[in-house]
Amino acid sequence: MTYAERLRTITAERGRLCVGIDPMPSVLDAWGLPHDVDGLERCARGIVEEIGGEVAVFKPQSAFFEAFGSRGVAVLERVLVDISEAGAMSILDVKRGDIGSSMAGYASAFLGDDAPTRADAITVSPYLGVGSLKPAVEAAVAGGQGLYVLARTSNPDGGSIQLADAGGVSVAQHVVDTVAALNPAAEHAVGLVVGGTHGDPGCDLSRFNASILVPGIGAQGGTVTGLAAIFGDALPNVLPTASRGVIGHGRDKVSALAEELLAELATI
Amino acid sequence: MTYAERLRTITAERGRLCVGIDPMPSVLDAWGLPHDVDGLERCARGIVEEIGGEVAVFKPQSAFFEAFGSRGVAVLERVLVDISEAGAMSILDVKRGDIGSSMAGYASAFLGDDAPTRADAITVSPYLGVGSLKPAVEAAVAGGQGLYVLARTSNPDGGSIQLADAGGVSVAQHVVDTVAALNPAAEHAVGLVVGGTHGDPGCDLSRFNASILVPGIGAQGGTVTGLAAIFGDALPNVLPTASRGVIGHGRDKVSALAEELLAELATI
Repeated sequence: MTYAERLRTITAERGRLCVGIDPMPSVLDAWGLPHDVDGLERCARGIVEEIGGEVAVFKPQSAFFEAFGSRGVAVLERVLVDISEAGAMSILDVKRGDIGSSMAGYASAFLGDDAPTRADAITVSPYLGVGSLKPAVEAAVAGGQGLYVLARTSNPDGGSIQLADAGGVSVAQHVVDTVAALNPAAEHAVGLVVGGTHGDPGCDLSRFNASILVPGIGAQGGTVTGLAAIFGDALPNVLPTASRGVIGHGRDKVSALAEELLAELATI
Repeated sequence: MTYAERLRTITAERGRLCVGIDPMPSVLDAWGLPHDVDGLERCARGIVEEIGGEVAVFKPQSAFFEAFGSRGVAVLERVLVDISEAGAMSILDVKRGDIGSSMAGYASAFLGDDAPTRADAITVSPYLGVGSLKPAVEAAVAGGQGLYVLARTSNPDGGSIQLADAGGVSVAQHVVDTVAALNPAAEHAVGLVVGGTHGDPGCDLSRFNASILVPGIGAQGGTVTGLAAIFGDALPNVLPTASRGVIGHGRDKVSALAEELLAELATI
């Protein structure tokens, strides 16, 4: 199955929610865990133990694992296997972006059957041009995996570059259109990252032809009911992502908070 | 000492050259090494064994280490220690870029005295806005370390975003100006990445106030004599970076090729 088909199947079964695995210091505190690689492992794997069988997609944030060096990356590798064994899908948030052989190196790291840090999809950054991502697009399609290209991010600083004028459209729109043009040949495996915190994201997503990952639901200020207003016709492609709102109140709250959000998302 | 002072001291002693540690498959082949974590380690550490005492700065490309997962990252950690023990400086090419707590996670990974994958400087990507890099700027200054923000990259696809119009100037120029404005308070620790392959880089660097990392000398088509024409008044800030031209012809050629390039660079 293609990435798009796998994602459609699992979200039809489990609901359209992605839970961010962000074992940041404040989350470790809320779980009563130490700020070390053992605390990292207990938190990250604990999230999957709690809700791995109910939630469709998980998005581990690589930065919090890399903060513990190679031992943290080893934990990340185990978490990705846990997610797969729980029947869920993983979008590894690495925001990589590089050129030629370096981009191919990142593709080997995360995409393809033999990748040591294998995820179902990764996030990538287009600052070096959407064209520079080609080695990752090819590896993703070959492996039945996906990519999510940053278009418009949820933070207030993002507009300085993402809303610049790229030949009559915003940079974000240029990314949307360039990615959309790749998808017919790429099995619709190339999605976008668009923050859920902007009233107007600065790009028209109504004709976009793949998955749209929307971080920022909850702690960053985005709301479930706000999604319909922001994304309009593109709403069926939206994969809403919550993190601290689900995992940030201790391990014993994770399952109930995820269920609550799934119920709310089922209404839109 | 600040990062800028340390860089000035070592380049005054050893010459103004940065050698890329890019243990990509074709380089492993040229060294007669297998495409595995052992080959990776022998190549990457071998480069430092050959020229660690002569070259001022090394730039390991993280992608080629991450391609071997957590074990590859462990090799990277050893290579960074090797570089430091050889009296040279390291710029870890990771091109990270994220927001808030995630950017702080990356800062913990690479910057500060306790960082597990500690480098003297790292490269970062500004797609989420130069402002989003603040946690890394603060960590770098506190640790006497540096950052290099991507402005104009050497690849042909880069212009689609980097030459977009950000309020009357190119995105690349916006990055140059925003970084320059940070530097007086940031001990001139925040440099730029500007490719050495463009006749006109699309941004004015003449008043830039920190180090400019210039990849693309050699295999990517940039030349030493071309640097003066491209960078003009900014030339004293340029740190030219070569990789395959030095390391891509087998271990026994590394030392002679580095010396040749150092001699050529001493003439400009």
